[in-house]
Amino acid sequence: MKALVKTSMAEGLTMMQVPDPDEPGPTEVLIKVKTASICGSDVHIYRWDSWAQSRIKPPLIIGHEFSGIVEKVGEAVQTVKVGDYVACETHIPCLSCAQCRTNRMHVCRDMKILGVDVNGAFAEYVKVPQTVVWKLSKEIDPTFASVMEPFGNAVHTASVEDLTGKIVLISGVGPIGAMAIQVAKASGAAFIIASEIKEFRKSLALANGADIVIDPTKENLESRVMQLTDGNGVDVFLEMSGSVEALKQGLKVTTNGGAVSILGLYGKEVSINIDELITFKSLRLFGITGRRMFETWYVADRLLKHKKVDLSKVVTHVIRFDEWKYGFELMMKGECGKVVMRL
Amino acid sequence: MKALVKTSMAEGLTMMQVPDPDEPGPTEVLIKVKTASICGSDVHIYRWDSWAQSRIKPPLIIGHEFSGIVEKVGEAVQTVKVGDYVACETHIPCLSCAQCRTNRMHVCRDMKILGVDVNGAFAEYVKVPQTVVWKLSKEIDPTFASVMEPFGNAVHTASVEDLTGKIVLISGVGPIGAMAIQVAKASGAAFIIASEIKEFRKSLALANGADIVIDPTKENLESRVMQLTDGNGVDVFLEMSGSVEALKQGLKVTTNGGAVSILGLYGKEVSINIDELITFKSLRLFGITGRRMFETWYVADRLLKHKKVDLSKVVTHVIRFDEWKYGFELMMKGECGKVVMRL
Amino acid sequence: MKALVKTSMAEGLTMMQVPDPDEPGPTEVLIKVKTASICGSDVHIYRWDSWAQSRIKPPLIIGHEFSGIVEKVGEAVQTVKVGDYVACETHIPCLSCAQCRTNRMHVCRDMKILGVDVNGAFAEYVKVPQTVVWKLSKEIDPTFASVMEPFGNAVHTASVEDLTGKIVLISGVGPIGAMAIQVAKASGAAFIIASEIKEFRKSLALANGADIVIDPTKENLESRVMQLTDGNGVDVFLEMSGSVEALKQGLKVTTNGGAVSILGLYGKEVSINIDELITFKSLRLFGITGRRMFETWYVADRLLKHKKVDLSKVVTHVIRFDEWKYGFELMMKGECGKVVMRL
Amino acid sequence: MKALVKTSMAEGLTMMQVPDPDEPGPTEVLIKVKTASICGSDVHIYRWDSWAQSRIKPPLIIGHEFSGIVEKVGEAVQTVKVGDYVACETHIPCLSCAQCRTNRMHVCRDMKILGVDVNGAFAEYVKVPQTVVWKLSKEIDPTFASVMEPFGNAVHTASVEDLTGKIVLISGVGPIGAMAIQVAKASGAAFIIASEIKEFRKSLALANGADIVIDPTKENLESRVMQLTDGNGVDVFLEMSGSVEALKQGLKVTTNGGAVSILGLYGKEVSINIDELITFKSLRLFGITGRRMFETWYVADRLLKHKKVDLSKVVTHVIRFDEWKYGFELMMKGECGKVVMRL
Repeated sequence: MKALVKTSMAEGLTMMQVPDPDEPGPTEVLIKVKTASICGSDVHIYRWDSWAQSRIKPPLIIGHEFSGIVEKVGEAVQTVKVGDYVACETHIPCLSCAQCRTNRMHVCRDMKILGVDVNGAFAEYVKVPQTVVWKLSKEIDPTFASVMEPFGNAVHTASVEDLTGKIVLISGVGPIGAMAIQVAKASGAAFIIASEIKEFRKSLALANGADIVIDPTKENLESRVMQLTDGNGVDVFLEMSGSVEALKQGLKVTTNGGAVSILGLYGKEVSINIDELITFKSLRLFGITGRRMFETWYVADRLLKHKKVDLSKVVTHVIRFDEWKYGFELMMKGECGKVVMRL
Repeated sequence: MKALVKTSMAEGLTMMQVPDPDEPGPTEVLIKVKTASICGSDVHIYRWDSWAQSRIKPPLIIGHEFSGIVEKVGEAVQTVKVGDYVACETHIPCLSCAQCRTNRMHVCRDMKILGVDVNGAFAEYVKVPQTVVWKLSKEIDPTFASVMEPFGNAVHTASVEDLTGKIVLISGVGPIGAMAIQVAKASGAAFIIASEIKEFRKSLALANGADIVIDPTKENLESRVMQLTDGNGVDVFLEMSGSVEALKQGLKVTTNGGAVSILGLYGKEVSINIDELITFKSLRLFGITGRRMFETWYVADRLLKHKKVDLSKVVTHVIRFDEWKYGFELMMKGECGKVVMRL
Repeated sequence: MKALVKTSMAEGLTMMQVPDPDEPGPTEVLIKVKTASICGSDVHIYRWDSWAQSRIKPPLIIGHEFSGIVEKVGEAVQTVKVGDYVACETHIPCLSCAQCRTNRMHVCRDMKILGVDVNGAFAEYVKVPQTVVWKLSKEIDPTFASVMEPFGNAVHTASVEDLTGKIVLISGVGPIGAMAIQVAKASGAAFIIASEIKEFRKSLALANGADIVIDPTKENLESRVMQLTDGNGVDVFLEMSGSVEALKQGLKVTTNGGAVSILGLYGKEVSINIDELITFKSLRLFGITGRRMFETWYVADRLLKHKKVDLSKVVTHVIRFDEWKYGFELMMKGECGKVVMRL
Repeated sequence: MKALVKTSMAEGLTMMQVPDPDEPGPTEVLIKVKTASICGSDVHIYRWDSWAQSRIKPPLIIGHEFSGIVEKVGEAVQTVKVGDYVACETHIPCLSCAQCRTNRMHVCRDMKILGVDVNGAFAEYVKVPQTVVWKLSKEIDPTFASVMEPFGNAVHTASVEDLTGKIVLISGVGPIGAMAIQVAKASGAAFIIASEIKEFRKSLALANGADIVIDPTKENLESRVMQLTDGNGVDVFLEMSGSVEALKQGLKVTTNGGAVSILGLYGKEVSINIDELITFKSLRLFGITGRRMFETWYVADRLLKHKKVDLSKVVTHVIRFDEWKYGFELMMKGECGKVVMRL
């Protein structure tokens, strides 16, 4: 089969023929990939940055955001059957740790990541354990189905608390931030303030439904938020930028007793006044990683099935699999939303 | 001042001149009433039915749904000031019972109801304790501000659990049911099924955003819901009809592990198979009365301020105060939504 | 191997030699049974009552409460390994329904019950799917390990809300009610009122830590509870009796805004005033069945491992497997707690 | 009356005669103080440190932990009556901000603190608004009633999540940490690990019920906790030390998906790896300040009334009011638990 492979410990990727996956084991599922989308971490692997160097062991088929059709199932598979239209959780849990056994598989202590630790989905076929396969509602457009995984991040971040009637601040409007804006809006947020500094992303914020976008390099975010909220600040703050400055500003303008979800990664120690920004304000902070398996997927599926969100506003490019290089270039230039490849 | 008074223990009401309220006590607030709406319980009092006979002690100014402007405040009032645009919680709590002291004032054990136990709001002025006054966002149209109280019932019923991505069944589409449809939709419900048997109300359901209306006298509700939900049933059921049949059907089609809010009143003992309909299904049931003071009001206010719901679809008639008789006639015929009187 | 078998559609059971279970399939686990305890439903099967007649298809090895040692595992088993000391969830979920995929396996829509729908654990060996096996902490005495399943019911019932500092009413003090008393006490309940009418069980209530036992046939439960609680009523009510009268009394004395767990089964329609007992009081009701898989097991295991409860107060008889008849007789007389058989 | 007064902007306090408080206003309550305890912040005021210099405006009667008897009430007081045995919340809320109106008075945005911003309780009489008065259960020993306020901090910190069956780490065993150990134990914590470096406090930890005390200066906390928890880490971490090192270590050993309460104050920016310690672990963090008004008080009262905790293990000294200097000396030496003064 055709696959996009990290062949060596250097920059780049190779589209090449590789053997088809082995027959699925008893609890495994073989999926014919139909669409796949490019994640920032795929770009890290392409570039062979320090994270990739420390984690990736070539040769490896990369890619983890995808949708497809179940081609074969192992003899003991119960979750799906041949012909099912599916997407996949990319966190492969061990099933035996305390987390896996108490409904926290997304933070399994012995997790493998598809396309990072094991062969991934930028290929005609991919083989995965039955646990991670999610049967999609047939009403969901395959073009958007591969985006279910990052969309799930947005849903997870935006749903730790009920947003109905709440004033929400979302900092960082990359594709996941943009989807979080849509989720917050669909979930009943009364008013959504986005914070973003790049022009392309400011437009993305408005196109995805932000009521207002503040560029903290051009106006004082704190005073602007206070003015917009009658001095109350925001009820909920979703930090999706990975910017320390955004984190601090967001905590500052979150109202006493409010809630904060952190999906953004800072890549280093962060210096922060916990007393003033968290404790005296009695905030609740939620560290967000992955997606709840599969409560988050259930909500994500229903929101797409019933057209409560519109991922066409986030998927900016749909290309053929063999145009993958163009897709990666788009990602590296940074002026795209999600890039989806059709196989 | 002019007031609508239950003057005697018989059917009817009298529009008459009465003395203005006394000066507000230290913690009281005098409000100049601007709009008031007619509740079903006002009609009960008009008709002098058995409930009214057991509860009402004439002479009494009736009415409890209203908005207005603060005219005077007692010396110790802290929650509002003269000139504030306000609506009111109609449940007047004692402030001293265990419920009042632990954030459950809406089920105070020594509650008084405005316009039922004490003089109400169908008058030019009404005097209330500061605790029950809610300062409204100025963006809320006064025509709809008097409806905040029943709208709060809808918000309370629809918000015991996060509805994002959920399939919701709402049985009974009177004004509160209609508003609950809007709240559920605004809150991210993926698909809203209404159950209703009256033609006027079926239209109201669709106008307020139900995805489908089922008339259980014309089709099998259970099989229709199962067909609409791929056999899963609904995630959340809001019982707002007061019909025992609707309650049983709704419990039956609620999916295992789902949630149920009950606002409807049955007026008698209900015979129900708790084993099959609740316990084996591991449902969560929430008895709903009043509004959380004032978490519900906060959400209701924000939903209106930011146009997430549109009460013009529920307020079908706006009349002058001295046309009150026409309003009560409309209510008794039953072919109206909310009737608002301007003072 | 030796097994206790329902051989025919008539009263009675037969201890007999049967073939050992087949080799475990890829996701199955073969367990050597060490201890097993008798459940009320085993007695129903013995007696061949109407429920048994409608559900049981002889020949069938019965029994579902047990502990043992993993003897063999299928090739794809991940949750346990040979030699592990285990107990088992008796609800065998399908893994594919919406419930199974969203952390509600205990209310799977296509559930099989061990020893009811498939061969059970009153045998030297039992074969089960890996999903239902729980690895026990080694500090837990095997005598009590077989009781983990009904103990799990007690934990599940008593833990839908945090009991710390709460006044708790528990109606019905069979073995599960007695264990619930211990769990409530361990969980910080400030004061535990038991309601029970049988002498043996009244003693069981006190032995397991109830602060007081009320016999509603001998004193007025409502006035007694009100007196004990300064007129507030109880914060939390655990209905474990299956008595309609107990249900109604308990709802009546639960304080406004309180919580109610229902584990008891009534076996018929129940006539109840929902308006007065649930809605106006704004109660939260939780239907309880099974155990959360495996959050409940985690808590149950830790409570036993760290000696926060003492099941020796509930296990009244420990017998040999071949004394099973004596065990069933004890159960039918009803003057025992749990009866454990050693294999 | 006799009062302990901060008379000037310098170190020290003065016991002196001052005028009795004025008559209570309409919503005020005059309380005859019976017992009062010394808080760390009282010591800060005595020492006139930088915090005190920035906040305190002499002359001021200090003190905020106390119990007493209601002497007089204003005409509009509803929460208590003359003769009631009471303790007080020391956070005086404005009643009008969004926080006060939505059940978050403890983080009121215009809060006054008793004995800090207004005259306090180290005096024969103290006058407070009715909102902050809590009627105590008569079974609670007055010696311990003044400690309700810091005990409330312990309850609040230990009760953001249900601790039943959980492994809990508590770092910092001052009086509040010691009380939190008792609360965690009473609440069903399966195993309690305390982390503390001072000898006196290590003993306090054990006396109050910690299962083990780890001194991180003498052994490796991380490896010790992992060994004690079969490699899982702790389920819940209560940070009560104000030590950055303790915070980091605690986050590190909290299991993925676990919960963290932070009461400790660091007095400066803290440098912390949010990615590794919070986000990837999907932790929930709760900033804790004050006590929920009055859910926390309800639980605290019931725990004391029903002897679920024993504050005699924390109150190490009971002295006369005029021995106040000795009390402050004890506090400054640091080898005491709570010091209670009788008036």
